[in-house]
Order: sequence, then C-alpha cells, then structure tokens
Amino acid sequence: MKISVVKNILEANDRIAQENRAIFDESNLLVINLMSSPGAGKTSLLEKTIDALKNDFQIGVIEGDIQSSQDAERIARKEIPVVQINTGGACHLDGNMIRDTFKEFVFDDLDLLVVENVGNLVCPAEFKVGEDFKAMILSVPEGEDKPAKYPLMFHESKVLLINKIDLAPYLDCSVEDMKKEALKVNPHLTIFEVSCKTGEGLDSWYAWLKDAVNNRKSA
Amino acid sequence: MKISVVKNILEANDRIAQENRAIFDESNLLVINLMSSPGAGKTSLLEKTIDALKNDFQIGVIEGDIQSSQDAERIARKEIPVVQINTGGACHLDGNMIRDTFKEFVFDDLDLLVVENVGNLVCPAEFKVGEDFKAMILSVPEGEDKPAKYPLMFHESKVLLINKIDLAPYLDCSVEDMKKEALKVNPHLTIFEVSCKTGEGLDSWYAWLKDAVNNRKSA
Repeated sequence: MKISVVKNILEANDRIAQENRAIFDESNLLVINLMSSPGAGKTSLLEKTIDALKNDFQIGVIEGDIQSSQDAERIARKEIPVVQINTGGACHLDGNMIRDTFKEFVFDDLDLLVVENVGNLVCPAEFKVGEDFKAMILSVPEGEDKPAKYPLMFHESKVLLINKIDLAPYLDCSVEDMKKEALKVNPHLTIFEVSCKTGEGLDSWYAWLKDAVNNRKSA
Repeated sequence: MKISVVKNILEANDRIAQENRAIFDESNLLVINLMSSPGAGKTSLLEKTIDALKNDFQIGVIEGDIQSSQDAERIARKEIPVVQINTGGACHLDGNMIRDTFKEFVFDDLDLLVVENVGNLVCPAEFKVGEDFKAMILSVPEGEDKPAKYPLMFHESKVLLINKIDLAPYLDCSVEDMKKEALKVNPHLTIFEVSCKTGEGLDSWYAWLKDAVNNRKSA
C-alpha cells in the first residue's frame, strides 16, 4: 500500500518533469539538477561558475531550500535571474515546484539554468525536474564510503565534482579512493576534482560545461 | 491529500515509537537517536564513545543505512552488540524498523542503546523511534548556515556535537558562529565542540553521557 502511494507520486512527477523538459527544449536551454549533502559546496560552485561564464552565457538559477533565502541572496549578488523555492519541510525538489517558477524567467533569454536542490544525498535523486542531466558534489571531508552507502545519487548523476580537495592533506581520506568508489557505482561518471576555495581544478569544469551548453544550443 | 497521507504515516509511527519506548523503559535503557548529514562523523563518534565507556556500561548499537554494512562492521570490531538495518532506499529510520531489531538484543543486559540514523539532515528528525532524546552532529566543513537552512533537526535535538573542529583553521567558518546560529534555532541545545580525529573536547561529552546513563538507570 505504502509502496503504491510512493510509486504513484513518482509517476506523476515523471510526467510533470517531461512537460517541463518540453518547455526547456523550445528554448534550447541546458538544465542541470545540482545535488549534494548539506554544505558540500553547491552554492559556492555556482558562484564560481557564474563568475567564470557569465560573459559567455546567460545563466539562471533556481535555489531549493527547506527554508531561508540565504543561497538566493548569494546568487542574486551576481546580477543574474534567481528564484528561491522554499519547500517548507520537503527534503527534495519536484517537477511541480520547478514549474511554479517558470513565470519568473524568460527562457529564450537564457542558455543555462541550474537547479540547486535541497542538501540531501538521498531523496533528490528520485525526483526528476525536467533536467538534461543531474550533477552532484561530494566533498572530501564526507569520506570515500559515501558512494557505497548512498548509491542512487551516484548512479543517477552524469557528473561528479569532488570538492574541497584543498582539505585532503588534513583528512584520513584519499581523493583517489573516492573516485574509485564512485566509479564502482557508476562507471560512466565524468569526474572533476576541484576546490571552490582555491579555484584548483575548476577550469576543466568550466570548459566541459561550456561545451555542454554550446552542444545544447546547436542541437 | 498528500499532506493527509504524510500525517497518517507520522501518527502511526508515533504510536509505534511510544510502544518501543515502553519496552526500553522496562529495562531502564537510555536510547539515543543519533543524526547528521552524510560523513559528519556519526560512526567515528560512536567508535570513540564505545572505547571510552565500554568498561563502565554495556552499549548496543543499531546502524541505519540505505544499503551496505560498513558501519556495522566498524562497530562490531568493538565487540559489542550491533544490528544493521538496510532501509532499501528510505532516507530515515522509523519505529517499525527499530522494532524489527528487538529480537537481536537482550535489553536487560544493556545500559545504553545508540541508534545511528541514515545520514540526512532533513527527514530523520520527523520520525521518532522510541528514543529518550535525539542527538545530532554538525561538522565544521558543512558551514554555519546549516541551522537556519535545516532548522527542524536542530529544533528536535537535545544535544549538538560540533565535530571536526581540527579543520576550523583551514576553513572560512567560525565554530562560534555555528554555535550562535544553532542556539538561535534552539536555545536549549547542549553543545559539545569535538574532534573525533584528535580527541579534543570528547571528555566533556563522555562525562555528560555517563551522567545521562546513570540518571536513566536510577530513574
């Protein structure tokens, strides 16, 4: 009984996500669903990425949080369109919540829309929002056992950014082991090792993302 | 409609948690529901706490993970009773899952039972399992904005352990600000600043926990 309720919710969400996707398609808009544990660095990665690419592309952001608007305020300082969703307790974003933000954007004016999900390594991976792909961050202090313990998100993601590599010298945790464990769960992951604090490794991510946006525009 | 389903699930869970609690009461067993983000240090804290207190008390552990048994294996090396629950996708433990482990323990032989919840700063706070109180860990690398963004867990917890304070010198994050932000959400929090890596601050936690177990036994 409980399972059928959950299944119905997921099926209804998939339908809405497909409708969202069709709307994004009309504007050749690349949409990324960005996920991680709390505090892994989603907003910091966005700030850096916007600084690096905002002269090349028009970028929009949807910020998902249970409550507060701190993240949207950080992004708004970059002077790009940003909408805050407060889920009011819910631990993930779904297709309907994203749909409700559409009136706030002019999609034809955007090249890239990043949806920053609620900080949670579990539930966001189950709910599509209409994205082209999911990207996730795993920060080095979280430890190399996370892919085995939270496999769905690693399985559903196309891109994994391993963040806070500047902290590796102070931790009993190897970035190489993290990569190995992640690739065991999903051998197709594109992995970037980065530090949003020092900037190390971010250039490769920017170059990859630029290609992805350009491919989407010419598709 | 969705809300009423959720409400029914929570009410049914509260009833089961109360029944669990009555069973724990018969053995004067102190039960702690330990919660945090993935990788904040729940299992490390448990390992340290077991080493420090296993000559004083009989300790049992229930390990909650979506899948894998890595944490239970770590605890089993301490030669205390431990049961692994695999939730098979669910992002939190509930009263029923805990009930299913009861046949594996002799509660009269235990003084302290710690339930290590699934790593998630959101959903576990909504589901009682029959605990005396909830304790949570926030690790310094997660940042001081977490209490404002994930208030329910801070609100529901009696104890907050701020872990990984050894990393504070390498982060743009102040432990003092973390404490202030946590106390804004819940002024009644008992806070310990610790490093499970260096051992700093753990003695105060052990002393407090010893008192809590002794008070429970003599209650």
